[in-house]
Amino acid sequence: MTGEFAAIEALRSLLQPPPDTDQIWIGDDAAAVPARSGWLLLAADTVVAGVHADLQLTGLDDLGWKAMTASLSDIAAMGGDVGHALVTVAGPPGTDLARLYEGLSAAARRYQCPIVGGDLTNAGDLVVTVAVTGHCAGPPVRRGGARPGDLVWVSGTLGASAAGLRLLRERQARPPAEISDRAGWSRAETAHARPVPRLEAGRAARAAGATAMIDVSDGLSADVGHIAAESHVGVRLESLPVDPAATMEEALTGGEDFALVFCAADADRVETAFSGLEPPVLIGRCTADQSERLLDGRAFTPSGWEHSW
Amino acid sequence: MTGEFAAIEALRSLLQPPPDTDQIWIGDDAAAVPARSGWLLLAADTVVAGVHADLQLTGLDDLGWKAMTASLSDIAAMGGDVGHALVTVAGPPGTDLARLYEGLSAAARRYQCPIVGGDLTNAGDLVVTVAVTGHCAGPPVRRGGARPGDLVWVSGTLGASAAGLRLLRERQARPPAEISDRAGWSRAETAHARPVPRLEAGRAARAAGATAMIDVSDGLSADVGHIAAESHVGVRLESLPVDPAATMEEALTGGEDFALVFCAADADRVETAFSGLEPPVLIGRCTADQSERLLDGRAFTPSGWEHSW
Repeated sequence: MTGEFAAIEALRSLLQPPPDTDQIWIGDDAAAVPARSGWLLLAADTVVAGVHADLQLTGLDDLGWKAMTASLSDIAAMGGDVGHALVTVAGPPGTDLARLYEGLSAAARRYQCPIVGGDLTNAGDLVVTVAVTGHCAGPPVRRGGARPGDLVWVSGTLGASAAGLRLLRERQARPPAEISDRAGWSRAETAHARPVPRLEAGRAARAAGATAMIDVSDGLSADVGHIAAESHVGVRLESLPVDPAATMEEALTGGEDFALVFCAADADRVETAFSGLEPPVLIGRCTADQSERLLDGRAFTPSGWEHSW
Repeated sequence: MTGEFAAIEALRSLLQPPPDTDQIWIGDDAAAVPARSGWLLLAADTVVAGVHADLQLTGLDDLGWKAMTASLSDIAAMGGDVGHALVTVAGPPGTDLARLYEGLSAAARRYQCPIVGGDLTNAGDLVVTVAVTGHCAGPPVRRGGARPGDLVWVSGTLGASAAGLRLLRERQARPPAEISDRAGWSRAETAHARPVPRLEAGRAARAAGATAMIDVSDGLSADVGHIAAESHVGVRLESLPVDPAATMEEALTGGEDFALVFCAADADRVETAFSGLEPPVLIGRCTADQSERLLDGRAFTPSGWEHSW
């Protein structure tokens, strides 16, 4: 860790201390944590103010939450347990780091992925990168293992984040007091500001023998397309679990819901593995025709419905 | 990994492929590599164009090299082996990613720390973050373990990077052909553009029973001060190994040499552990007076010599 030493020291109070004195967290050249056997998972996501988060609509704490949960969602999509996080912040002098770290550490605590190091530096834009480790005792679930005949499931509803973004934008026309009144936010608005990584669902899908899995970050149509392309299968989908606040278009192309899409051959194993959790929704089947991308009988592309001329 | 999928695919050709098909590198939600027992080290550094690297003086490939080696140097300073890297790039559209990744992957290959994932996104500034893993079979070397009486050593010379920056700036007054003629660069200029992480020296220091270690990233006076403060000791230094191109001031306060400063009690063990490597230079001793910071009998502060009024 290099950078603004004093600022990092000030942030320590916002962060969890290590559970024992053998571990090295904030304040040395590198963090050191006990290694675990099996597979080490590594993921990093970057959130840029004005690109991935509109600070007119949501707060710096929400941006921090989003940066952390985007990386955690990548671990969820492999079926892994989370480990530790490194947070690097490049931003303009005067950035309210305390508020940013409030969101980062709220997510770190909620999902038990402590922030153990990182870097702070100056830049014109606010750029927050979270790198996380994760762990699987056995092989993690890739995108490319689905086979024709596998069933396709979604854990979570689709479109809430996109609907929430639309509602937050509409709210901008209201008086300022209502804009910042978070207690008055709808469920969809909260889903946009504070997305939820589906870590338990990811582990359950892996336990159920999932052959492929991805988190919905770019939109269902794009992300299902990634599974199909990497697995060399087609997909026929129907009856998506559209969030009540969302349109069908938002459910199909809205990203950042962090819902998980996974493929698995055995519906009974899926039911067993998800007992005690919100059950996933069966939305279709993989087919042998690699070019097939159908939703309710209609072709879709990564950017949504395929439009005829 | 999210972001600009097509661009990431294009970069794959610049990156090493995984050594076996069980490992997951670029192109899935997270990377997956075999876990090793012992201690997992985690470090991340961010390099911002215009802040940490002047693209008038050095190239985008050099910026990539620097971002990678800054994180590797953190692993060196714990006495660890390097593992794997995640690279996240936020930058303006049109950034020459191929040249940036040329430097990133040259360093990744040279120091055997393959790039296994990351993220690409748009931002106004070019911000490159490299997060790396490392490994120690036993406890890594912290900053805070030095004891009064321990000897202080430096592996590498001091000031070359600062001298190189000065020389590169002077070169700007020359004709353009000479500015870009890297074959004509002095050793110090190359040391600035392509700093070397001291991984072998770091492992040797750990093997020699080093009680504290840090890499010189902020400048010797600041970084020795970190060891002294964290270890609750004073330091008396003399006869620094000043790079032939550098001034004493550059040796004392110039950062980014990635030389390692370490403390160890037993000179014979240090000699044995470094056999076959460039021998480290003994530069002083830790003292019981926590407030003592002396170089050649003169007081220094984190920012260099202490000036009397």
